[in-house]
Amino acid sequence: MAPAGNILQRLDAGEIVIGDGGFVFALEKRGYVKAGPWTPEAAAEHPEAVRQLHREFLRAGSNVMQTFTFYASDDKLENRGKYLGAQINEAACDLAREVANEGDAMVAGGVSQTPSYLSCKSEDEVKGIFKKQLDVFVKKNVDFLIAEYFEHVEEAEWAVQVLKTSGKPVCASLCIGPDGDLNGVSPGDCAVRLVKAGANVVGINCHFDPMTCVKTVKMMKAGVERAGLKAHYMVQPLAYHTPDCNCQGFIDLPEFPFALEPRILTRWDMHKYAREAFSVGIRFIGGCCGFEPYHIRAVAEELATERGYLPAASEKHGNWGAGLEMHTKPWVRARARRDYWENLKPASGRPTCPSMSTPDSWGVTKGHADLMQHKEATSQDELKPLFEKSKASH
Amino acid sequence: MAPAGNILQRLDAGEIVIGDGGFVFALEKRGYVKAGPWTPEAAAEHPEAVRQLHREFLRAGSNVMQTFTFYASDDKLENRGKYLGAQINEAACDLAREVANEGDAMVAGGVSQTPSYLSCKSEDEVKGIFKKQLDVFVKKNVDFLIAEYFEHVEEAEWAVQVLKTSGKPVCASLCIGPDGDLNGVSPGDCAVRLVKAGANVVGINCHFDPMTCVKTVKMMKAGVERAGLKAHYMVQPLAYHTPDCNCQGFIDLPEFPFALEPRILTRWDMHKYAREAFSVGIRFIGGCCGFEPYHIRAVAEELATERGYLPAASEKHGNWGAGLEMHTKPWVRARARRDYWENLKPASGRPTCPSMSTPDSWGVTKGHADLMQHKEATSQDELKPLFEKSKASH
Amino acid sequence: MAPAGNILQRLDAGEIVIGDGGFVFALEKRGYVKAGPWTPEAAAEHPEAVRQLHREFLRAGSNVMQTFTFYASDDKLENRGKYLGAQINEAACDLAREVANEGDAMVAGGVSQTPSYLSCKSEDEVKGIFKKQLDVFVKKNVDFLIAEYFEHVEEAEWAVQVLKTSGKPVCASLCIGPDGDLNGVSPGDCAVRLVKAGANVVGINCHFDPMTCVKTVKMMKAGVERAGLKAHYMVQPLAYHTPDCNCQGFIDLPEFPFALEPRILTRWDMHKYAREAFSVGIRFIGGCCGFEPYHIRAVAEELATERGYLPAASEKHGNWGAGLEMHTKPWVRARARRDYWENLKPASGRPTCPSMSTPDSWGVTKGHADLMQHKEATSQDELKPLFEKSKASH
Amino acid sequence: MAPAGNILQRLDAGEIVIGDGGFVFALEKRGYVKAGPWTPEAAAEHPEAVRQLHREFLRAGSNVMQTFTFYASDDKLENRGKYLGAQINEAACDLAREVANEGDAMVAGGVSQTPSYLSCKSEDEVKGIFKKQLDVFVKKNVDFLIAEYFEHVEEAEWAVQVLKTSGKPVCASLCIGPDGDLNGVSPGDCAVRLVKAGANVVGINCHFDPMTCVKTVKMMKAGVERAGLKAHYMVQPLAYHTPDCNCQGFIDLPEFPFALEPRILTRWDMHKYAREAFSVGIRFIGGCCGFEPYHIRAVAEELATERGYLPAASEKHGNWGAGLEMHTKPWVRARARRDYWENLKPASGRPTCPSMSTPDSWGVTKGHADLMQHKEATSQDELKPLFEKSKASH
Repeated sequence: MAPAGNILQRLDAGEIVIGDGGFVFALEKRGYVKAGPWTPEAAAEHPEAVRQLHREFLRAGSNVMQTFTFYASDDKLENRGKYLGAQINEAACDLAREVANEGDAMVAGGVSQTPSYLSCKSEDEVKGIFKKQLDVFVKKNVDFLIAEYFEHVEEAEWAVQVLKTSGKPVCASLCIGPDGDLNGVSPGDCAVRLVKAGANVVGINCHFDPMTCVKTVKMMKAGVERAGLKAHYMVQPLAYHTPDCNCQGFIDLPEFPFALEPRILTRWDMHKYAREAFSVGIRFIGGCCGFEPYHIRAVAEELATERGYLPAASEKHGNWGAGLEMHTKPWVRARARRDYWENLKPASGRPTCPSMSTPDSWGVTKGHADLMQHKEATSQDELKPLFEKSKASH
Repeated sequence: MAPAGNILQRLDAGEIVIGDGGFVFALEKRGYVKAGPWTPEAAAEHPEAVRQLHREFLRAGSNVMQTFTFYASDDKLENRGKYLGAQINEAACDLAREVANEGDAMVAGGVSQTPSYLSCKSEDEVKGIFKKQLDVFVKKNVDFLIAEYFEHVEEAEWAVQVLKTSGKPVCASLCIGPDGDLNGVSPGDCAVRLVKAGANVVGINCHFDPMTCVKTVKMMKAGVERAGLKAHYMVQPLAYHTPDCNCQGFIDLPEFPFALEPRILTRWDMHKYAREAFSVGIRFIGGCCGFEPYHIRAVAEELATERGYLPAASEKHGNWGAGLEMHTKPWVRARARRDYWENLKPASGRPTCPSMSTPDSWGVTKGHADLMQHKEATSQDELKPLFEKSKASH
Repeated sequence: MAPAGNILQRLDAGEIVIGDGGFVFALEKRGYVKAGPWTPEAAAEHPEAVRQLHREFLRAGSNVMQTFTFYASDDKLENRGKYLGAQINEAACDLAREVANEGDAMVAGGVSQTPSYLSCKSEDEVKGIFKKQLDVFVKKNVDFLIAEYFEHVEEAEWAVQVLKTSGKPVCASLCIGPDGDLNGVSPGDCAVRLVKAGANVVGINCHFDPMTCVKTVKMMKAGVERAGLKAHYMVQPLAYHTPDCNCQGFIDLPEFPFALEPRILTRWDMHKYAREAFSVGIRFIGGCCGFEPYHIRAVAEELATERGYLPAASEKHGNWGAGLEMHTKPWVRARARRDYWENLKPASGRPTCPSMSTPDSWGVTKGHADLMQHKEATSQDELKPLFEKSKASH
Repeated sequence: MAPAGNILQRLDAGEIVIGDGGFVFALEKRGYVKAGPWTPEAAAEHPEAVRQLHREFLRAGSNVMQTFTFYASDDKLENRGKYLGAQINEAACDLAREVANEGDAMVAGGVSQTPSYLSCKSEDEVKGIFKKQLDVFVKKNVDFLIAEYFEHVEEAEWAVQVLKTSGKPVCASLCIGPDGDLNGVSPGDCAVRLVKAGANVVGINCHFDPMTCVKTVKMMKAGVERAGLKAHYMVQPLAYHTPDCNCQGFIDLPEFPFALEPRILTRWDMHKYAREAFSVGIRFIGGCCGFEPYHIRAVAEELATERGYLPAASEKHGNWGAGLEMHTKPWVRARARRDYWENLKPASGRPTCPSMSTPDSWGVTKGHADLMQHKEATSQDELKPLFEKSKASH
């Protein structure tokens, strides 16, 4: 029933590859990741929690188990946790493989943007960091590699160049919107540069809501085609509505990261996202921060006809709410139908709150003093001017 | 560091007992419970998923592991699952006990309202159903018992009377709001009747948002005190904002159960809830549908001074967002403070949606033909008039 | 086509009497009344503006021309304007009569609550103020009298007692909500006291939105009937939605008085109001602050069948938007129908604003030092503590 | 105190010219204009109402009295009213002149887009219509001319060419947004074409909210400057917030024209608009549909320092709410300050309504069968398919 072959064979064969959801945010809510540093030491500390989340995404329909190695570069971890990057990276690979083998999923090793790049370290230094992570992925023999969550296409190119040395398929996804990367390079140009650097699959992850990310990938695809190049496309957006974002994405929303609840997408929003992503030609479709297992299940259910099967977790979910036919109350049974959920405009229950925010926009990027990495948590003295600045902007 | 003694000893000693969150809703999102029937066969089918959720609530600060036995009465399950009630109830007890022993938590066995009562079966028949569940709880030696989620105080009294025969402490919580039970019995009168029936702890769970539930428990407490009686108080509300509910609670909201996302409380909302519950004299404070582990952690953090310790999961959570002091971007570091989160009015990101809904209100209750339990899922023919009725009401 | 007889004969005959709208607010927007003092010296200064507004309400269907004498008591005016109360009151009577005679409208002279009462002057002093106004109304031979906009039923009783000495019909309307007057006297009890004081028509004006006012009049009617008394009923609400008001009404909303725009009722909201007022038995139906001529026209159109005729201004208004049948664009022509407008949920166009506010509530009433009348505008020094207090409450 | 000279002399001298507000919408609410046809026969039928509105705008600070001749071309009126265009146009000129002479205002004669153009009549035919209107303006010796409310720059060019033959100064304003005219001609290109056709002042009126219109005029100015041309600039936007409009403007909003109330700008919104318009170099600043006298007064008050005087109506308005210093209640006195009103986010009082709508967008323009002018009101048979289409789009 499920697909076979490596990711390129599957994509070349026209198959849909469903990604997983957002580990960092999901595990923060479960109590295993700390917001702020956002580092993945839980892979080593609490393997049962990470394993269970992998398993839920597998049940929900994911074909890809991404190793839980976000921000697991030594330059990030040395300031923050008690585990070495290698330990965490190895444990994460083992967990992903263990669960992948329970189904027919592929394991993907991931690298992401580094503090070193933002602090203007040299190309060699930055590449050295990626190489160290890659060594673990090669040793653990992951199925393919993803360079994801880059705000600057240049750093993503460096990552792709390093990852390509492994001979494994390489995906590259940026966390940018339709306005392009933080230096203003357009999505189309970014995509061309990534393909030229060797990426087999290019796209977008994180920072913006599903429809915005799909739109941006569409611009990337147009750029690649205009350049006479070929690629596959991926998208792994937020599960938060972000119509009010500026170019830096949801980080700048006042609600980030602890009050995003009212923005969470419903499963029905996910149906629309999956359909739209498919219809513009994206075939690697997953999620990032905010995606819970039921969001991925909704993607898999929307594309069940195209894929030819439902995910395992659909044993616990009726199509378009059909399970409600068995609800105790008749008026809830009346909601067991597609047009009800498709057209519902859900209320926030928060009449004193607005529907859109004014994002922060301090307009700093790579190299700005404010972005140099600190060894210590910001002190109260350092924070004070930030509070003032922040106060003025709201 | 943690408390000791049975629940009554703890409450008598003035301790705060923190409950757990909503298993049915959390496990639905994780792919193990089906919305509509809402039955807990996962305790037998997927024990690792149930165990992990128990563990997360324990880490978050829960002192109570409620057995995952909601709606696990035979009259409910016979129509719906492939497991017998006893199997599920036993497995659930074992899981709760296993995780409770990893910390210092108590195990609570729970019964809730029955289809039999709504279908006007006799007192003996209804009590027989509770007795069957109780037999398992006694055999598995749970620490105390909870009769919860009752819309009619009469059925709750019957449940309490059955549970009291075990000699264990009994809690009773109704799923009603300030307008009283579905027959219009006021919260104060309901509480008096439950205490007279033998309940040691009385209160409210589910159906309404935290502030509404606390307000209702306050009315119960006033009723009990007016009657010259004594009791402890509990509250386990929804984690959804429901200012627009009528007397039947969130079931009647158009968003129930698949589009409640924009209503989810933030952790900061939970701080306010915990403080308010404590200040009106409630000492058993937990959650129901929608409560995820981080919501319970927020309750435990708000009451950390009173309890004398932080929950284990606070190793992954800075007080009032303090973890953000280590965030990459300075303007996010500026959010590492209490007054920022306490005063934020979070946007929904949904500018075409309202902030309040008009609830369905078909005004049926116990004995109405529409509420008689069906053996089969409602057929399309039966649903059609419901669709029409539902269409007209929106 | 139009009715005849004095107001009591009309009401006794079962006729609907339509009031006018809000002069103070409408003329503030037209540039002739100053917000803050809210005094009606324009009757003497700019008679053409006042005459024109009377005429518009007459065209819109009003059967009552209220003299533009709000707050025109000497104790109010002595601090504020350059005209004597008598001059203004006389000019206002002449204008109302002039326009009333252009149709078949009645002239009503009005008195309202006094600074003297709030400053705890004696009954004699307060009654003396009403008497001085009444003398002008008698001299100018108005058709009937209205004591309106009272927050304390006691002061309204005094006003009724004074007005009754004229032998003319007397209406009495309070600006209170369902919670009763500022001393907590219930709407039902207030109504009984007013009827006993001699009022022929009792009801509510200002401070709350139409549905809230109708609900309050319903409570008054129930009180009068319970007491075995007889009366007619009137309602003249705000044209602003105020679901978030506390007992002091819209004064306490943060938007009062200069940012109420998003709350303005549409003409279709007015149809619902007129129907509801009629259906609970109210027969004197008008408006207060915020009511523009088209709002009164909507009331008259909703009740056209019952009254037997349309207002003059309906020559410029198609029933339920029928005029749009002649619009240039076809999709606007498609809006020429009742169910379109009746069901539309109009957007605010303000995505960063909430739908409900948290009202100020300083909880002061008659006799509080803050309410003693000042001779001078509040000084910056006096205002400073108010700013601080106000800041803290938002 | 007030300025002197014709409009070009004033603008050349760097003076700010303040326009008037929206006659059609204001008089519809007062009962003198019918929504749908929107024709100005009230100039002949009810001169006192039109005169009074002119006077209110004059008091509010307007330097321009636009003749109330919107849509007063014979091809429009022949289907609709009982007056000939010439009668209405002459009466309107007389009224504007009468009130202009009460102050120091200029009279502007206006022409706007014609049904003939939308129905694809020839350039000669369309120009003939403008010529007929111009003849009246010349006979009545208006001070200058405005070609306004054009969706197609080509028709506006024709109008300018006709108006130029009079030798009087000519202003040209389109009702387009940043996306350009309905044929997709950009704002910058439109402006260049209008200047080349002979317009002395170019800009935008109607269809979009103030900030959108200012932004569009800014694009026009940039186009004119890029082309090495010279012009003055004008803006007369809606007084409605329209963040959700597509290229056809507020006509396509579901709320048009009878439920726009929640979108009405406050006077404080107008301060921001006036400041922004001034700061981008616009010197003829007025309003269109929705602008009431107090909106224009707010524009005049914001620019009082630059103009050197306050408008007459400011005798009835304290700066930034200063009049509230004399309010009865102390917490309302606390609102007598600029930062209170400047930062307030006003609530809609409509918790079941959204903040943004999805506009209709049938995508038809000049020449489409649906836009050909009808002799008769659309019949019920013709409307039925429109209703269906409209239903589907909401």
